[in-house]
Amino acid sequence: MDSSQFREAAHTAIDQIIDYYENIRDRRVLSEVQPGYLRELIPPGIPQTGEKWEDIRRDIEAKIMPGLTHWQSPNFLAFFPANSSYPGMLGDMYSAAFTCAAFNWQCSPAVTELETIVLDNVARLVHLPEEFHSAGEGGGVIQGTASEAIVVVVVAARDRYIAQSKANWAAEGLNEDEIEEKVCTLRGRLVALGSDQAHSSTKKAAMIAGVRCETIETAMGDYRLTGERLTAKIADLQARGLVPFYLTATMGTTPTCATDDFPSLAAALAAHHTPTSPKIWTHIDAAYAGAALVLPEFAHLPATFAFADSFNFNMHKWLLTNFDCSCLYVRRRRDLTDALSITPAYLRNEYSESGLVTDYRDWQIPLGRRFRSLKAWFVTRSYGVDGLVAHVRKSMDCGKAFTALVTADSKRYTLVAEPAYALNVVRVNPPPGSVTAAEDGLEYGKRSNEVTRKVAERINREGKIFITSTVLGKGEESVTAIRVVGGAPGVQVADLENAYRVISDVVDAVWAEEVAAETPPAETAQAKEQVELQAV
Amino acid sequence: MDSSQFREAAHTAIDQIIDYYENIRDRRVLSEVQPGYLRELIPPGIPQTGEKWEDIRRDIEAKIMPGLTHWQSPNFLAFFPANSSYPGMLGDMYSAAFTCAAFNWQCSPAVTELETIVLDNVARLVHLPEEFHSAGEGGGVIQGTASEAIVVVVVAARDRYIAQSKANWAAEGLNEDEIEEKVCTLRGRLVALGSDQAHSSTKKAAMIAGVRCETIETAMGDYRLTGERLTAKIADLQARGLVPFYLTATMGTTPTCATDDFPSLAAALAAHHTPTSPKIWTHIDAAYAGAALVLPEFAHLPATFAFADSFNFNMHKWLLTNFDCSCLYVRRRRDLTDALSITPAYLRNEYSESGLVTDYRDWQIPLGRRFRSLKAWFVTRSYGVDGLVAHVRKSMDCGKAFTALVTADSKRYTLVAEPAYALNVVRVNPPPGSVTAAEDGLEYGKRSNEVTRKVAERINREGKIFITSTVLGKGEESVTAIRVVGGAPGVQVADLENAYRVISDVVDAVWAEEVAAETPPAETAQAKEQVELQAV
Repeated sequence: MDSSQFREAAHTAIDQIIDYYENIRDRRVLSEVQPGYLRELIPPGIPQTGEKWEDIRRDIEAKIMPGLTHWQSPNFLAFFPANSSYPGMLGDMYSAAFTCAAFNWQCSPAVTELETIVLDNVARLVHLPEEFHSAGEGGGVIQGTASEAIVVVVVAARDRYIAQSKANWAAEGLNEDEIEEKVCTLRGRLVALGSDQAHSSTKKAAMIAGVRCETIETAMGDYRLTGERLTAKIADLQARGLVPFYLTATMGTTPTCATDDFPSLAAALAAHHTPTSPKIWTHIDAAYAGAALVLPEFAHLPATFAFADSFNFNMHKWLLTNFDCSCLYVRRRRDLTDALSITPAYLRNEYSESGLVTDYRDWQIPLGRRFRSLKAWFVTRSYGVDGLVAHVRKSMDCGKAFTALVTADSKRYTLVAEPAYALNVVRVNPPPGSVTAAEDGLEYGKRSNEVTRKVAERINREGKIFITSTVLGKGEESVTAIRVVGGAPGVQVADLENAYRVISDVVDAVWAEEVAAETPPAETAQAKEQVELQAV
Repeated sequence: MDSSQFREAAHTAIDQIIDYYENIRDRRVLSEVQPGYLRELIPPGIPQTGEKWEDIRRDIEAKIMPGLTHWQSPNFLAFFPANSSYPGMLGDMYSAAFTCAAFNWQCSPAVTELETIVLDNVARLVHLPEEFHSAGEGGGVIQGTASEAIVVVVVAARDRYIAQSKANWAAEGLNEDEIEEKVCTLRGRLVALGSDQAHSSTKKAAMIAGVRCETIETAMGDYRLTGERLTAKIADLQARGLVPFYLTATMGTTPTCATDDFPSLAAALAAHHTPTSPKIWTHIDAAYAGAALVLPEFAHLPATFAFADSFNFNMHKWLLTNFDCSCLYVRRRRDLTDALSITPAYLRNEYSESGLVTDYRDWQIPLGRRFRSLKAWFVTRSYGVDGLVAHVRKSMDCGKAFTALVTADSKRYTLVAEPAYALNVVRVNPPPGSVTAAEDGLEYGKRSNEVTRKVAERINREGKIFITSTVLGKGEESVTAIRVVGGAPGVQVADLENAYRVISDVVDAVWAEEVAAETPPAETAQAKEQVELQAV
C-alpha cells in the first residue's frame, strides 16, 4: 500500500466510520452470531500475494460488523460505557503513525512529557488533591486498564510493606538470616483486601502478585465499605495470624455504583497505623465513576481521597477517550519505581529522582508504551472543560429520567440501590397478586429474582437494547437485578425512555407467561406452547 | 467535532502522516530537545471551551514533532525496530472507532474470533509446531508487549509448579496443614532463570510475581545458553536449597541476537524431569528475531521449539504491525486460565474448555482488550506472505551489506559477535599503533572500549543516525560495542552504507583526538581546545 493508495483507503475508512457512527442506532446493539461464525466466513491462511484494500474493507462490513456488539450505540446500557470520540480516534491514528516504543525519555521525549502535562491537567479537571500532581512527590501515568493499575499498586504495596517490615526488624537488631526467614513467613501471610462489591481485578492482582485476597462484606442495600467493617476485618485477620497490606476502596462499584465511606476508612486506618508500623496501602478505584468528578456538584469529593496512596479512573470509560486510557495517580512515585524499576538505585537517583526525566516504564508492567496521551490531549482540547462536563451531565440526566420512570412504576419495579452516576439497579416485581407473602420476605424475593432473570435474558435475546444483570448478596437473601446505565457518546434522555418501554414490554410478556404457567393443568400446555413460540 | 469536521480533520491528519512518512529521511532521527521542553511550549490546563482541530494539528508539527525520535526513519538503527505501516494504521483507526472492551466473547464475538484466526495464520506463517495452534490444547493470544507475555507465563509457571507439588505431597499422604506449610516454604525458594543475555523483562516478571530470579552466565563471544550450563545451574540451585521453576530461553538476544541452544536445553530439561516431578516451564522469547521465521531458510528452526511451554514474538517489532501486537503462544492454554481466571472452575469447564468460546481475559493481565487482531489481519492481507518475506529479507540484506563493510575494514572495526537477524555488533579498534599490547589483551580491550564509547556518544550527539551501545560480559574483560540494526519499513542497503560512512567519519575524528591527546604536553592544550570545539 503506497501513499496514494493509503490516502484513498483512509478516506474510504473514514467514510465508513462516519456512516457507522451516524447510523449506529439502527444496528442491533447486541451481536447475534453463534460461536465459531467467523471461521466459516474467512478462508484460513495468509494470501501469498497482497490483497487490495477494497476487498479488506468490504469484509469489515460483511464479516466483522455482524460479530460486533456496538458499545457506542445509545442502546448499549450494559456493563459500563466505553466511550470513543472523533478526536480520540485522531489521537490513535497519530500514535500508530509515530509508533515509538517510548520506554525511556530519550526514545521520544514528547511521549513522556505530554503524558505528564496531560495527566496534571486531568488531575485538575477531576479536582484531585495536590498530592497526586507531578509537582511534588506524586504524579500520574496512563495504564492500559484499571486492572493493570491495580496489579501495579498491589505489587508496590506488597514490596513497600516488606521493605518497611525489614527496616523495623533491622532496627530491632535481627541479623540478615533472621530477617530473610521472617520475610518468607510474612509473604505467606499478606492479605489484599476489598469489599464484596469491589471489582474482581483486586483478586486477580493478588493472584498475580502471589498473595492472599479476602473480601469484606458490606450491608445489603447500602453496599458501602465502612471504617467499622474494615476495623473488624483487620482484627479478624490479626487473630488468624494474617497481615493486611493493601485495600481497594471504590468510588462507584460495578454492581451498584456505591461509593465507600472514605472518611471512616481514613479514620480506621489512622487508628490502626502506629508511627513505625508498615502502612496498609489504600487504592481508590474510580474506574467508571471518576469521570463524574468533572461535575461541580462532586468537586468536594476528591478532598476525601487525601488519605489514599493511589487513585485511578478510566478516561476510556465515560470521558470520550477511546480505550485504552486508564489514569493512575500515586501520592509517592518512588513507591512504584522501588517496586518496578530494574535500574540500579544509583542510576535512578541521578535521573528519575531529579524530577527532570520520568521513565514511565518504571511505573508500569510493560517496557514499551504507546503515545496514549495524544488522544487524551486531543479529547480534552477539542471538548474543553465545558464539553466534557456537558457529556457527563447528559448521561446523569439520562439516569435521572430512568430513575423517575421506574420509581413512578412501582407495580413493575423496585430500585434495589440508590441510583448513582447514571446507573439504575432495579429488580422486577413478581406478577401482581402472584405472591401472597410479604414483599420483604424470602419467597417474594425468590420469585422476584426468577422474573428478573427471565426479563434480563429476554431483553438481550431481543437485542433492541443491551443490559446486564447482577446478583447482590449471597444465599437465600440474594437479589437479582438489572443494571441500566446509558453513557454512550450520543445517548439522549429519549433513549432511556425507549429502554424503559422495551423493558416494560418484556416484563408484561414474562408476567403473562408466569400467570399462565400457574393456571390449572388444562390451560398449561397451551401456555407452554405460547412461551416456546415467543422464545423462538 | 461533528462528522463533517471529523472528515476534514482526518483528511488533514492523513496528509500530515503521509508527508511525515515520505520525508522522514530528512528529519534528524534523534530528538535534541532538553528535558522539560514541552512545559515551556504548552499552556497548563484544559481550555474552558473546545478548540479547533486546526489549532491542535498545528501544535503537532510545532510542539510534538521536535520531541519525537523517529523510529520509522531508515536512520533509526538503535534498539530493535518498531515497525508501523499504512494497513496497520487503518487497523488502529477501526479499533478506535469500534471501541469495545471485549473482555468476553459476547462483548464482541468478532474481536475474539478474529484473534484466534489471525494468530493461527501467523503461527503457520512462522512455522510454529502444531502444539501452539488453537486446534489442540494450545493457542495464541495478542499481548501488549513481550514483557507482559513474560509476566503471564511466569505467573502460570509458578502456579503450575506449586499445583503439581501440592498434588505430589497429597499423594504422599501429607495433610492440608502440612501441605500449606510446604507451599509457603516453596514460594520463598522458587527461582526464575534466564541467561545473562536474556532480556530484563524476566527479572521484572519475577519481581512482580514475587519470586527470585537468577541468571546463567554464557560464554564470551558465543552468548548462547547451553544445556550444559543449565544443568550446572540447576545443580547449584539445588545445592543451595532453591527450586528452579521457569526458564526464559531466547531466540535473538537483545545485545547480540544470539540464539540459545534449544536442542541441548531440551535434553537437559528431559534429564532433569522425572515422571512425577513438577516441570520447569520453558518460554522462548523471540520478541524481535521471531519475525525472521517467515524466511524459508529459518523454517527448520521452530521444530526445535517443540519442547517449550510457550513462545512469543512481536509483530510490532519487525513485522510491519504498529505497536502493540505481541503474539504469545502456549502449548496448553489451560495453564494460563488456571493461573489467571477468576471464574469458578465449574463455569470454565462448561464454556472455555469446550473450545467453542475463548475468553482471552483469562490469558492476560487486563480485563478489557482492544481489537488488535484487526491491524494484524490488515497487515497480513495487504502484504501477503510475499510482502512480509520481502520486508524481512530486505533488512537481512541491509545487515549483510553492513557486515561486509565492517569486515573489510578491519583497521577500524572488530565484530564481537556473529551477525544475526540483521544486527551487527562491532567494537571500534584503538587508533592504529596507539596500543603496543596484544590485540587479545586487557589493555587493548580497555582502550577499545573507551574509543567505542566515545564514538557511540558522538554519533548520537550528531544525530544523523541513531545507534545503541551495549556492554558484553562483566569486569575487566567486558566489551563495549555498538549495535547497528536497520529494520525500518523504508530502510535500504544504501542507508546502511551511509551509516557505515557516518560511523567511520566519527571514528576518524575520535582517533585523531586520541592521538593528539597522547602527544607531548605542548600540543595537548591545542588538541584539547580542538576537541571542545568539535563537541559543541
